[in-house]
Amino acid sequence: MAEKAVRGTFLDFIDDPWKHVGDEAAATRFHVDGLLVTEDGIITDFGPYDEIAPKHPGIEITEIRDRIILPGFIDGHIHLAQTRVLGAYGEQLLPWLQKWVFPEEHKYAERDYAEEGTKHFFDNLLASGTTTAQTFTTGNLLCNEVFFEEATKRNMRMIAGLTGIDRHVPDYFANTPEQYYADSKTLIEKWHGTGRNLYAITPRFGFGASNELMAATQRLKEEFPDTWVNTHISENPAEIHGVLALHDDCTDYLEVYEKYGLVGPKFTGGHGVWLSDGEFRRFSESGAAVAFCPSSNLYLGSGLFRLGRATDPEHRVLLSVGTDMGGGNRFSLLNSLEDGYKVGMLNNTILDGSIVPSQQDLAESERNKLSAFRAFYLLTRGGAESLYIDDLVGTFDIGKEADFVALDYTAGPPAAPWHASLLLEKAGDGPLSLETVSDLLFGIMMVSDERAVDQTWVMGELAYQKA
Amino acid sequence: MAEKAVRGTFLDFIDDPWKHVGDEAAATRFHVDGLLVTEDGIITDFGPYDEIAPKHPGIEITEIRDRIILPGFIDGHIHLAQTRVLGAYGEQLLPWLQKWVFPEEHKYAERDYAEEGTKHFFDNLLASGTTTAQTFTTGNLLCNEVFFEEATKRNMRMIAGLTGIDRHVPDYFANTPEQYYADSKTLIEKWHGTGRNLYAITPRFGFGASNELMAATQRLKEEFPDTWVNTHISENPAEIHGVLALHDDCTDYLEVYEKYGLVGPKFTGGHGVWLSDGEFRRFSESGAAVAFCPSSNLYLGSGLFRLGRATDPEHRVLLSVGTDMGGGNRFSLLNSLEDGYKVGMLNNTILDGSIVPSQQDLAESERNKLSAFRAFYLLTRGGAESLYIDDLVGTFDIGKEADFVALDYTAGPPAAPWHASLLLEKAGDGPLSLETVSDLLFGIMMVSDERAVDQTWVMGELAYQKA
Repeated sequence: MAEKAVRGTFLDFIDDPWKHVGDEAAATRFHVDGLLVTEDGIITDFGPYDEIAPKHPGIEITEIRDRIILPGFIDGHIHLAQTRVLGAYGEQLLPWLQKWVFPEEHKYAERDYAEEGTKHFFDNLLASGTTTAQTFTTGNLLCNEVFFEEATKRNMRMIAGLTGIDRHVPDYFANTPEQYYADSKTLIEKWHGTGRNLYAITPRFGFGASNELMAATQRLKEEFPDTWVNTHISENPAEIHGVLALHDDCTDYLEVYEKYGLVGPKFTGGHGVWLSDGEFRRFSESGAAVAFCPSSNLYLGSGLFRLGRATDPEHRVLLSVGTDMGGGNRFSLLNSLEDGYKVGMLNNTILDGSIVPSQQDLAESERNKLSAFRAFYLLTRGGAESLYIDDLVGTFDIGKEADFVALDYTAGPPAAPWHASLLLEKAGDGPLSLETVSDLLFGIMMVSDERAVDQTWVMGELAYQKA
Repeated sequence: MAEKAVRGTFLDFIDDPWKHVGDEAAATRFHVDGLLVTEDGIITDFGPYDEIAPKHPGIEITEIRDRIILPGFIDGHIHLAQTRVLGAYGEQLLPWLQKWVFPEEHKYAERDYAEEGTKHFFDNLLASGTTTAQTFTTGNLLCNEVFFEEATKRNMRMIAGLTGIDRHVPDYFANTPEQYYADSKTLIEKWHGTGRNLYAITPRFGFGASNELMAATQRLKEEFPDTWVNTHISENPAEIHGVLALHDDCTDYLEVYEKYGLVGPKFTGGHGVWLSDGEFRRFSESGAAVAFCPSSNLYLGSGLFRLGRATDPEHRVLLSVGTDMGGGNRFSLLNSLEDGYKVGMLNNTILDGSIVPSQQDLAESERNKLSAFRAFYLLTRGGAESLYIDDLVGTFDIGKEADFVALDYTAGPPAAPWHASLLLEKAGDGPLSLETVSDLLFGIMMVSDERAVDQTWVMGELAYQKA
């Protein structure tokens, strides 16, 4: 296939903005007039238009004007089969699962329903600018087949796996450890590395896993060491009590997963709201990641993730952002950023010492601030690093897969355009500066939502255009 | 003017749902096929279509299909002159005011800018389904003139007043107590009760008011006892420390307003995040109201309003919901309901006793749940009661002003229609039941936003139609 190119305003990240407190711009790469060259969906050249264009005479160029182009968003934690029950009323985690989630997920054992739900799921991802998602499916083999078929058809970089549960679950929905092992193995052999699919061994959560199911998980990870592991951790206090009652030889939640050899690179624990300092330290040392799911943590009342503690340079934890849709009530990671900012600000009214002076910690407070650069770093390069797919996606580096999103910073609710005009007016005429881009991106997080997603591109092809 | 009518599915409230725990439907009035008759903007008849239509032969009827029609929404706390700076980055209350708010509000001293901003403000209200708002303006006389002129032109039921501040504010923005008194008096005499305008004596907040400014406020309230009083209270811990330093004869924040004779019916304190039990009790006993501003409280990190405590039947506090735009980052009260639900759920993970067993309070926990009926009660009848305008708006009672909003429960982000279809499918064929309406309204709060606002009517006339 011939090379082709996209011209526009590009922003990606060359480093972690939390390493550049006071000078976050040093973590960015910004081309106000840039050119991204791709061939067969892979980035083959990237840089300022004036520098790159002459090297590719006659190349077909698509111009994207008045947009900010970022690498495609990465959702670290989302549930396929909750697409229709997002925003269900009234319960914390454990009763919410019983009342709303298990009955809906069970429907995905039927091919027709699974296909319908999976199509909705991918359509919603693309409309949200999300091009990669680490996805919980269900414990049903057919549902997983349907998922990987659709992911293949969409040609999207997805991580997913059969989601096993055998405790605290209705009988109709329970796996057996044997079936979980066998079906997972079937799926790994068929789908892991096929197209852009990657497989995650997925025990749903400690509270839903017997020792036998955990042992099956361990066996799978030993037999297929290059697979991912995706699960939940320390979401809700009642859940944690339940986990430690079920695994009474463990002193904390993380130890359950450590005991079965799962914790290390390519391991993601979703939520981590109630992780202790010691658990954060073990995450950091092992190279395991947390998926920060703020919309869900607020929606289910789980609590406030200690973002400033997780980003302590002494024991920095790899982080992605997860919508946790439908524990999170919104599909768009932009809404997750809004709620993530709110979580950080709530933490800071504790950490500023104005309530209890001894709780003052201004350095941790500063790290709780989810600036635009920190936020969009987490959705792109940061998320990719946390999932160990930063060799594939997350930046515009040559050799990466060309997944990207074009954001319209004037689109959104009726209040958005006049707000954006203030930022643009302050900036004056002429091309966008990096500072203005930061302001506009923050506006997209807080005033807009997926209405700012004008186009989503997958492997160098336009996959979504806002109507 | 001749009578005319609207036919559709109507819901309003005949009582406070918090008084009907376990049977909130008892607080509602629901006509799946209803008819609302108006004349000169006033409701002259209302009830089931079959019963009401025969009494009005030949009447012109507008049919609104596939919508839920509610009384127009009431915003208890919003800032006119922050329309353009909503969603500004990075600060808690006091530095945020200095950095973003005062410079923007100062622009409203110019008529052209004030007119432009005020038009945006009203356009955004209508697009959000908000027909009444208790509004902070600025301390500038001209800005207030422009506001009341526009409110009169729109024929909307508004409460507002010159917003005085003379402490902790840049010189260019400070009032003097004398000018505050004189300009407020001018505005009261010209605008209070003119058209649908109502005047609120508005000391911005205790932290920004000298004793002399407070005394001017008291004098105004004594001279014009039927005016409203609108201010802020106990939003942020640092603010509270500052207030008590400035008013060192007061033992708590409420006492500052009590000392100047302001607390009672028609008094609203915005936020109230850190109110003590004793202050809640004095609010309740005096008939004063709190405007609950969840989006702002999360956005500025102010804290979690104790909704279940404020609704304790032993000392029930009158409540409205306020967007507090731009301290709140969204114009739509539907987003405020989303955040209000999240605040309640976060409170409940404390109150369920799973962290500290002695903090368990299941009754308060139950009251923290912002169900759809509780939520929309607060936006309509409840908000009207708290502002003492329930003789004018907030329900479909005969004699009330015909402000209402038609909600499209399938509109919203791409995820909304399939979500709504689940609720409708569960309900089966046939007309909507009250239970399904409750589910759909909750979906509008949590999955949708102002995209669900299809039409907004003011005084019996269509004032906004979604494009």
